[in-house]
Amino acid sequence: MIFILNLILCIKPSQTEQCKDEAVSIESLINPKSIAIVGVSTKKATFQVGGRAIFDHLRLHGYPHHIDLITREQTTIDGQGTYTNLSYLPEVPDCVVVSVPAVDVYQTIEQGLSLGTRAFLVITGGFSESGEAGTALQAQLVDLVTSYGAAMLGPNTTGYVNFNSRIAMSSTSRITAGLPQSGEVGLVIQSGALGSAMLEHAIHDGIGLSYLISTGNEAVTDLGDYIDFLVEDANTSAIALYVEGFRRTPKIVAAAQKALAANKPIVLYKTGRSDAGRRAAAGHTGALIGNRGAYDAAVRQLGWIDVRSIEDLLPTAHYLVKSRPAKAIGILTLSGGLGGCLADALEETGKVTLPAPNETTIERMRQDIPPFLSVKNPVDIAGTPFRRAGGFAACLDAFLDDPAFDAVTIANTPIVAPWAKDVSDAVADAMARWRKEKGGNAPISVVWPAEIFNADALKALRQQGVPVFSRIDSFTTAVVAASTFAEARATPSRLIREGLPKLSIQGAPTINDEARNEADSKRHLKSLGFSFPAEAFLAPNDHDALCVEAQKIGYPITLKGMAEGVVHKSEYGLVAVALPNEEALRQRLQEMNASAQKHRLSMEGFLISETVRPQTEVFLALSIDPEFGPVLTFGAGGIYTELLKDVTTRLLPLDRTEIVDMINNCRISRILHGMRGRTALDVDALVDFIEAFAALAPHLGIDFQGVEINPIGVGKAGDGVWVLDATIFGKGPTA
Amino acid sequence: MIFILNLILCIKPSQTEQCKDEAVSIESLINPKSIAIVGVSTKKATFQVGGRAIFDHLRLHGYPHHIDLITREQTTIDGQGTYTNLSYLPEVPDCVVVSVPAVDVYQTIEQGLSLGTRAFLVITGGFSESGEAGTALQAQLVDLVTSYGAAMLGPNTTGYVNFNSRIAMSSTSRITAGLPQSGEVGLVIQSGALGSAMLEHAIHDGIGLSYLISTGNEAVTDLGDYIDFLVEDANTSAIALYVEGFRRTPKIVAAAQKALAANKPIVLYKTGRSDAGRRAAAGHTGALIGNRGAYDAAVRQLGWIDVRSIEDLLPTAHYLVKSRPAKAIGILTLSGGLGGCLADALEETGKVTLPAPNETTIERMRQDIPPFLSVKNPVDIAGTPFRRAGGFAACLDAFLDDPAFDAVTIANTPIVAPWAKDVSDAVADAMARWRKEKGGNAPISVVWPAEIFNADALKALRQQGVPVFSRIDSFTTAVVAASTFAEARATPSRLIREGLPKLSIQGAPTINDEARNEADSKRHLKSLGFSFPAEAFLAPNDHDALCVEAQKIGYPITLKGMAEGVVHKSEYGLVAVALPNEEALRQRLQEMNASAQKHRLSMEGFLISETVRPQTEVFLALSIDPEFGPVLTFGAGGIYTELLKDVTTRLLPLDRTEIVDMINNCRISRILHGMRGRTALDVDALVDFIEAFAALAPHLGIDFQGVEINPIGVGKAGDGVWVLDATIFGKGPTA
Repeated sequence: MIFILNLILCIKPSQTEQCKDEAVSIESLINPKSIAIVGVSTKKATFQVGGRAIFDHLRLHGYPHHIDLITREQTTIDGQGTYTNLSYLPEVPDCVVVSVPAVDVYQTIEQGLSLGTRAFLVITGGFSESGEAGTALQAQLVDLVTSYGAAMLGPNTTGYVNFNSRIAMSSTSRITAGLPQSGEVGLVIQSGALGSAMLEHAIHDGIGLSYLISTGNEAVTDLGDYIDFLVEDANTSAIALYVEGFRRTPKIVAAAQKALAANKPIVLYKTGRSDAGRRAAAGHTGALIGNRGAYDAAVRQLGWIDVRSIEDLLPTAHYLVKSRPAKAIGILTLSGGLGGCLADALEETGKVTLPAPNETTIERMRQDIPPFLSVKNPVDIAGTPFRRAGGFAACLDAFLDDPAFDAVTIANTPIVAPWAKDVSDAVADAMARWRKEKGGNAPISVVWPAEIFNADALKALRQQGVPVFSRIDSFTTAVVAASTFAEARATPSRLIREGLPKLSIQGAPTINDEARNEADSKRHLKSLGFSFPAEAFLAPNDHDALCVEAQKIGYPITLKGMAEGVVHKSEYGLVAVALPNEEALRQRLQEMNASAQKHRLSMEGFLISETVRPQTEVFLALSIDPEFGPVLTFGAGGIYTELLKDVTTRLLPLDRTEIVDMINNCRISRILHGMRGRTALDVDALVDFIEAFAALAPHLGIDFQGVEINPIGVGKAGDGVWVLDATIFGKGPTA
Repeated sequence: MIFILNLILCIKPSQTEQCKDEAVSIESLINPKSIAIVGVSTKKATFQVGGRAIFDHLRLHGYPHHIDLITREQTTIDGQGTYTNLSYLPEVPDCVVVSVPAVDVYQTIEQGLSLGTRAFLVITGGFSESGEAGTALQAQLVDLVTSYGAAMLGPNTTGYVNFNSRIAMSSTSRITAGLPQSGEVGLVIQSGALGSAMLEHAIHDGIGLSYLISTGNEAVTDLGDYIDFLVEDANTSAIALYVEGFRRTPKIVAAAQKALAANKPIVLYKTGRSDAGRRAAAGHTGALIGNRGAYDAAVRQLGWIDVRSIEDLLPTAHYLVKSRPAKAIGILTLSGGLGGCLADALEETGKVTLPAPNETTIERMRQDIPPFLSVKNPVDIAGTPFRRAGGFAACLDAFLDDPAFDAVTIANTPIVAPWAKDVSDAVADAMARWRKEKGGNAPISVVWPAEIFNADALKALRQQGVPVFSRIDSFTTAVVAASTFAEARATPSRLIREGLPKLSIQGAPTINDEARNEADSKRHLKSLGFSFPAEAFLAPNDHDALCVEAQKIGYPITLKGMAEGVVHKSEYGLVAVALPNEEALRQRLQEMNASAQKHRLSMEGFLISETVRPQTEVFLALSIDPEFGPVLTFGAGGIYTELLKDVTTRLLPLDRTEIVDMINNCRISRILHGMRGRTALDVDALVDFIEAFAALAPHLGIDFQGVEINPIGVGKAGDGVWVLDATIFGKGPTA
């Protein structure tokens, strides 16, 4: 996996035109009205691969338009004659599928472009994934295809499936045994073989897909383009991604902005493998925020939903399509055990509550619940509601009507078939009633680990579009996702509102984490307008000069007598903190000299400094992430920075509210806000400082590669903050 | 759920006999040679419940011995005549199943006992789970059954299945559609309906069970008895538990000791619901360690394996039966994507490494791997090894033979049937070769999300006893479990070696978390041998008396002048730290008086104290957990106790190594050991102190209910530790 860093999307006038062309080309690529496949095997085989597999799969799943085949020798395949050269086609194909040896791909595409085709799907491997020669071949393809504003999926892709248009343009053998139903989840993956596992999940769980796109090497058309396409696509309501790495981040951020505006959640699973090879941020920040720090920040600020198990990717996206976010869930369960496990898991998320049902609900359910069971949440209905016709439906309706709940979850263990049918029928009726009375899907979800014993009921529920889970943890992941997405929509970040900052650096920055020395770091920061506590060192006897310096620094002044060999100055009365004025300063100078004489100390001089009284210390850093650009990291300071790793990272830009939220995200915030009756500290001054510090971002990659301020001392409310130490990383003009 | 706290298992001589009887009775209960069922419905029904369901299920699954039926009216059921009273039976049944109304249960059991039966299974509900009247009824049953040393499963149970003896003694309707295969996992659950979900899991994943026991109300025979039974059972190699609460903990701890000695892992899922109602520990400790603190400690110290998703319970136990612990895993994958997700997840556990294969392996695989793919780990074999017969088998053998790996994992996506068969055949051959050459199972596991497309291959693998996972997270849970269990076996805790301490308290302790005042707390701790930094306050002018006190406390001495209205004493030279001798003390007294005169301060006196130089602060507490008895909690001290919740809890007893390990479990340990070039602190003194503190456990419940020492100051190595503040909770004789 190679990451091409391109932090700025340069839009030249000529390129705007090209972008429009590209959008048209992508439509031809993903929804072609005619196809030509170059490189179709005529061999008999147990199963087919390459162009022949695509031809077979297109026909198997009912591609409704014309397909032309190009083979080496003219022949007939499944009753269809072939051509021996793309140029011989009587009509221009909307999309050309290329499955010829790598060295022949360029020529084939050139022929297609000459014909007028602007969409290519290149299955062939042996390009950038296979070494230097392949990378060079791929670069030639990129030049050729982009010069025409054409679209290209691949090379090295298994293709895609467009479910609504019945275009099974994929070489994946899994699809010979059926496809998932068409639906509203658009899936894009940076892998080939994983696609068949995702199809398996979708079929198993009855999840409908709009597209499955396997992006291959993303030489021309990439992840950002496909996200953008799916955001625009009317059939897609949620987007699911399997990501190994982000290539052109600004395009992806722009697509994320559009997706949030269009109310289309983006759910993603990101592998960490490729991160291992990534260049971490300069200084300690890299170790602190880890490989996923910037990614986690992007997830938060872009309103994305990150799942930590690949198996939860599609179920989560499906739930987001079918359900509304819920803050209060009512659980109807046939098993106190299962219901309890579910309640535990939901409460642990901290995102939903399980309130008690109201009086009317209790009243309505009383008929169907044995007297010794209380109607609570979860309510263990045991088997009794199934003893009368409509009993379970009555319980479900009572829960659905209860204003205490935003959503209802049915948690069943395997049950006898008649009861299972009661459940699926009751849900169907409730769904119909809800659609009629309130519109849309009723907020019902089901947790029912009975894939074998109650297969019929589960199938019936899934066909009605009810999200059905066989695992509790997958369900809670989905519930949290809905809540996260709703929050992101309610308070969009500044990143969503404004996009990534345009940096002046072009191409990959030369990341260099060599730390500059303290003096150099401080000098540079001072030149950028940041001040350190003022101090001055003077000879032991020049009291007048000392008073002049004190005046410059400003009272209250802290005075320290420096004597040879004395470490614990206070034991000799050589420390005076916060002297209010010149009179007090002169008096203490005399006393210190007297004490020195008495203890026969050899005085070296006096250090006077601005009186700083930090109550706690925090950490602040600015660095460059290779994918997402400038990132800001905040956390506990001093020795606690490393000890606690109590840090949080954000992409820039950030507004004031987000800075406050970032601070509150760290445990150290409890000290800042004055925990357990302690004085509150100067959070306002800290926020001001962070805002000013974040404004240094344009210097990244030019003046320096990173800055760490550790510690920043934070005083009591009104006292301010002080930069106590700072390090600049990487060479810059003043270094 | 009611918890009966019974921290001591009193073994009187007469009761030893009774225990032996009980073991015999449990054998009759779980493996009866004849059964009588009292209360069998004669009604036609879509599905049967109660005693009739048990009769049907026993016959359906081929119970090999005699069954008698007792009904109200004499009749014939499925060709078998019935009796109208238990007493009329011609022979004594080994086990009596009771399914009569709650009020009739006592009499039925009495009849059975009179006949000579010593094992009862009571399905009937309406006992302790249903309120006061039921609790009283249950207490009568307990008296009756225990007085005969008989065993009783239930009341309010769905029964059990003994898979090896084909005894489907369960009313769960799920078993009408088949049972999992018999195997080595013994499953005990504190729930009825959840059992059918567990059966579904076992059937789905091809997991073999030895027993499924649903414990019901555990009135007589309880969780501890069943664990003990399974530890003794030759057919059971791993024990899986679903736990809502522990009733008689010492019995469970004793069974855990036997299980570890017998190399039988105990895997458990514990719900938190019942914890909500539990009395948390006294003081702040309760809030700090949460509801699961003592449980987590038990898991660690007993070598148990806690799973956080109920769905992972059986797959983890199954993996432990079939696999050995692995520290280095080799991954063979057909998908770079899936293999990468798996590698990410395994590496994140921190328990296994993915080393590179050695040269021989690379050489052996070269024939089957395309030249542009490198043989690494995971190795992405793509499809090429399947192109020649035996290609995949050759790759698998090369990985299995590689000494760099303890285990091999095959990670497949859905693949065409011939390839899938290649995989299952290759694994079968490898298994056979391994058994022949090395004995036991080959360390092969499979992650293959293709339950539909490759159902045949998955079934074949499962039939060979290969652990097959369709989710990566379930697999990593199992891998970590194997590693955890191996560690527990290698270094058994003192709790495992010695068992729970015998406390002098009988029955439930009166937990009372009222904090005693500082003086009272300190006085009590002093009476128990704990000392605080010595100090004395004297009048401003009595220097001689002050020197006498200083001599008593011991030099170096810290001196503070107390003057009216002065907060920052050091600004007036009123603080002197670590004065080495009387001369230095007298000199500083004079200076302080002089300074006071000069600043016109009104001196109140002098405070002299032992010189303490704590470098950091820690927290230590002793409290009582209602299930597990005395627990020790250690963590970061002072304000960080609450801020960081950097605490860890252990059950007692603990040996010195475990105390060191407990300290190292907290982040604060990095400060104690001297992080980033700082001085190491006095960890030895701290460990000594914790050992002494833990020895206070016998006072719990008598002298006090809890003690918190916060902070304990820890000095530099060799300087010692100081109790800076302490609180005792709960009344005691000295309060």
